[in-house]
Amino acid sequence: MSPDANGRLSLNTMTTKAFTLREAVEASAAAGLEAIGLWRDRVAEAGLDTAAKLVRDNGLRVSSLCRGGFLTGVDGAAALDDNRRAIEEAATLGTRELVLVVGGIPDRDLVAARQRVADRLDELVPYAVEHDVRLALEPLHPVFCADRAVISTLGQALAMAAPYPPAAVGVVVDTFHVWWDPELAAGIAAAGAQDRISSYQVCDWLVPMMPDPLVSRGMMGDGVIDFAAITALVRDAGYQGDVEVEIFNEKIWATAGSAVIETMKQRFRELVAPALTAG
Amino acid sequence: MSPDANGRLSLNTMTTKAFTLREAVEASAAAGLEAIGLWRDRVAEAGLDTAAKLVRDNGLRVSSLCRGGFLTGVDGAAALDDNRRAIEEAATLGTRELVLVVGGIPDRDLVAARQRVADRLDELVPYAVEHDVRLALEPLHPVFCADRAVISTLGQALAMAAPYPPAAVGVVVDTFHVWWDPELAAGIAAAGAQDRISSYQVCDWLVPMMPDPLVSRGMMGDGVIDFAAITALVRDAGYQGDVEVEIFNEKIWATAGSAVIETMKQRFRELVAPALTAG
Repeated sequence: MSPDANGRLSLNTMTTKAFTLREAVEASAAAGLEAIGLWRDRVAEAGLDTAAKLVRDNGLRVSSLCRGGFLTGVDGAAALDDNRRAIEEAATLGTRELVLVVGGIPDRDLVAARQRVADRLDELVPYAVEHDVRLALEPLHPVFCADRAVISTLGQALAMAAPYPPAAVGVVVDTFHVWWDPELAAGIAAAGAQDRISSYQVCDWLVPMMPDPLVSRGMMGDGVIDFAAITALVRDAGYQGDVEVEIFNEKIWATAGSAVIETMKQRFRELVAPALTAG
Repeated sequence: MSPDANGRLSLNTMTTKAFTLREAVEASAAAGLEAIGLWRDRVAEAGLDTAAKLVRDNGLRVSSLCRGGFLTGVDGAAALDDNRRAIEEAATLGTRELVLVVGGIPDRDLVAARQRVADRLDELVPYAVEHDVRLALEPLHPVFCADRAVISTLGQALAMAAPYPPAAVGVVVDTFHVWWDPELAAGIAAAGAQDRISSYQVCDWLVPMMPDPLVSRGMMGDGVIDFAAITALVRDAGYQGDVEVEIFNEKIWATAGSAVIETMKQRFRELVAPALTAG
């Protein structure tokens, strides 16, 4: 891995949503990036083996695969099957980190939904370990608790990861989701101390928000997040991995992918990279 | 205070936004309610002394006054003045509980904004104590962290209250704001054990959300919150006070206030009252 902070920048394919996998890979390589974060839909369109070869042939690391999860349904059989496929895909693509968005509440029972996540995680861990893949629990902003993720904080994700070895279950630190957390410093430090930081993802919190919070993410610098402060916490926690930029934003999606990548590189260089190595 | 759970229901004037103070007070009394939660705008329109007399003459308790706060600005002098006025108003209206929405971030420095809340709270506490008014810190859902409240959890509110006596600084438990919190049970139990629950407010979390989260609150039963579960936590924490219904919702605001009050009474009776006294 590059010792240079800029070498740790990774494009998550969601940021350049209009790109095919090939376009995203080739644009990343052309822009001098060393890593890429993949969504399963783009991988499926390209075909798994083709995708793996494309990434390899272009000399990129796969920083993570997004995403498994959605484990909170009352009947979990289909979700477990799908997560096993995701584990296999991660292994084939050569990444250790499979991001899990655990799912929301199908009814009003939040406690039971969280328990189903724990139970199904327990079923998936051996399969992940067998494939040398880590299940990376992603706390989502509490605005998504009802419909996307009943894990809302790093502390809660770490508690759910605790029964398993750090090589089997990790956590994702995504600035958009965790920036508000009064326990953020403690959560990041604990995640680092336990060697459980699977991924550090950066994007901004826009004010005002978009009408749909799902697509209210912004390019770093366009919102209110203090990237220097959060990045310093991640650095001090010992994280040495890639930094993914994963932005859901209609305007960015309507912009040419190559221009988005250039802006991303510039903002990363200005706002994230300095704190990633200094200290 | 009525030992009957239904006697603890309180209409927050925001729920019947189109009502003048007089209309809200008279409709509450006519509906057999024993308490009312007041917003300062309606009080100001009526005139403070007139408002106090209106409420008294109609035999209602004032469960809380909403709201002071907005203490995070870089220059705090005007905000402190306004909060002193709010303290005086609460005392005149005969309520001990002044709800504080502490304010968002004027820049990207969340840590500094939180510190300003702590510093200004420290300035306000003696004035509140002198007027026998409690400053009730309200954690707001993290979706409002940027623009409305840098206090996002009960645990954080209790930490900020800790330097002061329970009679001087309390916390608000509002289901809409706290339902997602993985530490909710511990937070409510601690708030009760410290005798710091200033107000229990109920309204629902709608799915899907409205485009503006501020007005995405729903009548109890219209969303995904488990009122029996949260109310039981509040009951077990020893809370004996009123239960306010405070709903920001365009459809409810467009409905006749008397009809809203009838629906509120019915939903309260079905979804909240049973857990308030049983156990």
